[in-house]
Amino acid sequence: MSSHHIVRDDQEPALIIANGAACSPELLGQLLEWSPFVIVLDSAIERVLELEIKVDVLLGDFDRGFNPQYYLEKQYPLEIVHTPDQNKTDLEKAFDYLIEKGHKAVNVIWATGKRADHTITNITNIVRYREHLKIVILDDHSKIFLLPKHFQKWYTKDSIISLIPIGEVTGIHSDNLFYPLENDTLTIGFRTGSSNHAKEDGIVTIDHDKGDLILIESLD
Amino acid sequence: MSSHHIVRDDQEPALIIANGAACSPELLGQLLEWSPFVIVLDSAIERVLELEIKVDVLLGDFDRGFNPQYYLEKQYPLEIVHTPDQNKTDLEKAFDYLIEKGHKAVNVIWATGKRADHTITNITNIVRYREHLKIVILDDHSKIFLLPKHFQKWYTKDSIISLIPIGEVTGIHSDNLFYPLENDTLTIGFRTGSSNHAKEDGIVTIDHDKGDLILIESLD
Repeated sequence: MSSHHIVRDDQEPALIIANGAACSPELLGQLLEWSPFVIVLDSAIERVLELEIKVDVLLGDFDRGFNPQYYLEKQYPLEIVHTPDQNKTDLEKAFDYLIEKGHKAVNVIWATGKRADHTITNITNIVRYREHLKIVILDDHSKIFLLPKHFQKWYTKDSIISLIPIGEVTGIHSDNLFYPLENDTLTIGFRTGSSNHAKEDGIVTIDHDKGDLILIESLD
Repeated sequence: MSSHHIVRDDQEPALIIANGAACSPELLGQLLEWSPFVIVLDSAIERVLELEIKVDVLLGDFDRGFNPQYYLEKQYPLEIVHTPDQNKTDLEKAFDYLIEKGHKAVNVIWATGKRADHTITNITNIVRYREHLKIVILDDHSKIFLLPKHFQKWYTKDSIISLIPIGEVTGIHSDNLFYPLENDTLTIGFRTGSSNHAKEDGIVTIDHDKGDLILIESLD
């Protein structure tokens, strides 16, 4: 790693540490490398402080008899954001917080694994932030993000690429996928594009006309 | 546990052991208690045989240089079902196998955790089996199943109940949920019913008019 001093201009994606399964220390270390702005959700703070990570914001509804003040004494400065709104998940509230503060991009870890309802909700809800925040969810097996209407990225041959339609997605065209899509429609629950892969080393292109299409890169 | 001899009439739900994260030995033990018909998917067999579980069927596309014959020697009798069709997941092929054999119900474990694309696909794809097979996906945190148009079940107060619409679900009414639904519409990615809970000890009722609605019970 090159040495670097910390100049934080909020161009670097922020980092949200949610309350699901912990990721590997390696992934966490990579994401902390450039000293991102770090938000921790609710009682995940207990597990995070054990890892001696500098946290900027602790955010949550703190609805389980949890005392955030205790953590002010453990780490200073720490902004505590109490978000009691029960119509949103803590993760959505953290996205809202970042948007309000002018952030443009965020990586999210610990948002998958453990409770399946949280995993599905966390992944599928990123579609509603399309216009406001570039969100990438990462865990030890996957990298998850919402596709723009026109997507291009360089992949090595056989890279596993799954397309998950959040609802119905129409007019999908691909280039350099092993199972090509040509004016296809994908519908969640009925026809998804799971476990496709790059046909050759090179640019993979995925276009779609209408709907919300999530791409999951898998490491296996 | 009461003593019992094995009379397998295929009324007992079958058990599919998929290839995601392993569950607790306790959950596995509960599901094996009544000696279900057991199908193991692809290379999960390596982890399953270490647990000394009697397996009836090993099913998969065996596309990664995996040699199923080796397992015939390790355990006899064992039916090996080679399913090379790349348009379906191994889990879907196992559902198809059970339907063809006349099974009416199945529990599925190890279908969540690890790769997020598998988790989402495995959970959301159960909707297409509505008319053919009663499917329950279980892991250490969750119990997941598709709701009939009219659903009733007894829950203790505060039991966590999430409603996940696979696409759009309209005309939803609930009784005895803390956040009640009254002629509501839920849409995946945009409005889901995650982390609701039973208001009181008693029957929870959830009706819906149209669409596919999955219920996730969470233990936390």
